[in-house]
Amino acid sequence: MTRTAFFISDGTGITAETLGRSLLAQFENVDIRMVIKPYIDTVEKAEALVEIISAAASRDGEKPIIIDTVVDEDIRQIITAAPGFNIDIFSTFLKPLEEELGTHSTYSVGRTHAIGRDDVYMNRIDSVHFALDNDDGARTHQYDKADLILVGVSRCGKTPTSLYLALQFGIRAANYPFTEDDLDEDGSLRLPKALAPYRRKLFGLTIDPRRLAAIRTQRRPNSRYSSLDQCMQEVQQTEGLYRQLNIPFIDTTRFSIEEISTRMIAETGLTRRLP
Amino acid sequence: MTRTAFFISDGTGITAETLGRSLLAQFENVDIRMVIKPYIDTVEKAEALVEIISAAASRDGEKPIIIDTVVDEDIRQIITAAPGFNIDIFSTFLKPLEEELGTHSTYSVGRTHAIGRDDVYMNRIDSVHFALDNDDGARTHQYDKADLILVGVSRCGKTPTSLYLALQFGIRAANYPFTEDDLDEDGSLRLPKALAPYRRKLFGLTIDPRRLAAIRTQRRPNSRYSSLDQCMQEVQQTEGLYRQLNIPFIDTTRFSIEEISTRMIAETGLTRRLP
Repeated sequence: MTRTAFFISDGTGITAETLGRSLLAQFENVDIRMVIKPYIDTVEKAEALVEIISAAASRDGEKPIIIDTVVDEDIRQIITAAPGFNIDIFSTFLKPLEEELGTHSTYSVGRTHAIGRDDVYMNRIDSVHFALDNDDGARTHQYDKADLILVGVSRCGKTPTSLYLALQFGIRAANYPFTEDDLDEDGSLRLPKALAPYRRKLFGLTIDPRRLAAIRTQRRPNSRYSSLDQCMQEVQQTEGLYRQLNIPFIDTTRFSIEEISTRMIAETGLTRRLP
Repeated sequence: MTRTAFFISDGTGITAETLGRSLLAQFENVDIRMVIKPYIDTVEKAEALVEIISAAASRDGEKPIIIDTVVDEDIRQIITAAPGFNIDIFSTFLKPLEEELGTHSTYSVGRTHAIGRDDVYMNRIDSVHFALDNDDGARTHQYDKADLILVGVSRCGKTPTSLYLALQFGIRAANYPFTEDDLDEDGSLRLPKALAPYRRKLFGLTIDPRRLAAIRTQRRPNSRYSSLDQCMQEVQQTEGLYRQLNIPFIDTTRFSIEEISTRMIAETGLTRRLP
């Protein structure tokens, strides 16, 4: 039996969706189809949406779950009248917060990323460009400006993590891939010269060798680069280096990009630059 | 008078923070200092946090606002006992949801981005690499694989938007900057040949010329590239092209990256590939 859940907002829908997914993730044994409906900001759009909700109710034979952050009273009334089980985030929490804070709320949507905050916007964009310019060891002369330098073998998740840190938190993260060039004559991995002055900014990533081989195979099938042997050796060498030099590190096999990024911030005590 | 708000979680803290910011953004006239405390997953960490909350309460002379998504009963009890005004998201909504769904929740944290869902992870990474490979018109031969092709003048926000679409929604977005090479002999902008077969994938970005000049000045001060005249001309030409060819477009001056991205999805009806 499938039930439908609607995440409804007059803004981006990010709050309704984030909370909705967190709540529904607690019900693993219920099959839930999620429908995201942002920018429901007119009576007409709300009325059209009620039709969709009613259709889902008939099809499922059960009331859809409705999780909304709509602020406008008229629009909210229309949605509340739809045949659903309502979780109204704002009305649940804003009233008690108003009492506690001793003031009325402005009931304004989408103020979390306020318009016109040029410094925040600029910083975010700058961080993204910093991550791109300093991706994959492309440059090493800007490491003094980096908040963090991610290190690890090729394709262990450095680039997406750097970009997420930039977009979500305004953190300037460079990243440097360990390659054969970084091996000693005796075949052991040493800390590259370019990184030596910035040891306290280093954060390591590691990955299960089997997963790494699968990812690399997509890119270059049947190569030494993607062979399990090669992947195992590289992972072993990098983890050895992390331990030897006390570089904190995270296994990206086990965590999402959100988890990797927020754990890095928690562990390093880095300050977010956003918002 | 400043009040402190704590966003507390035993996971990433993303849900607590997202909801907390949305709620507190409704209180513009209250000065709120926000403190994010993810990964509070042991009794020891919770007890240490209670000390911090108590200190904030003494300093502010007011109870801190506590918004939490902690699932563990023991940890939650410790936090609830701190001198704060509690907004307990899960306990507020999970009980009624359990009744409505006729089942118990698994009360598991961080299940929104489940571990081991390799296809989701791979798709996300692939989308990021697609955005990077197809950034800034670097390549044009993969446009058949793009979900979306962002167009616009240099530095109007194409790259961060493409990356956000990839990371957050698994959408493959290429981006192409209009330059002087795309001008006709008579100086008017024409649709580049590489884009012509993909008109239905195009989404335009535009920007206030003054904002554009400010952004470009940071990069290349006192150049023609960053002059207001040049920026005004480029913006006028691109908006003209959008109107002429009916290319949907968004003004990035007015919106955050989240808003731009979610509006694009809403307008194009694109399907997210995540989660």
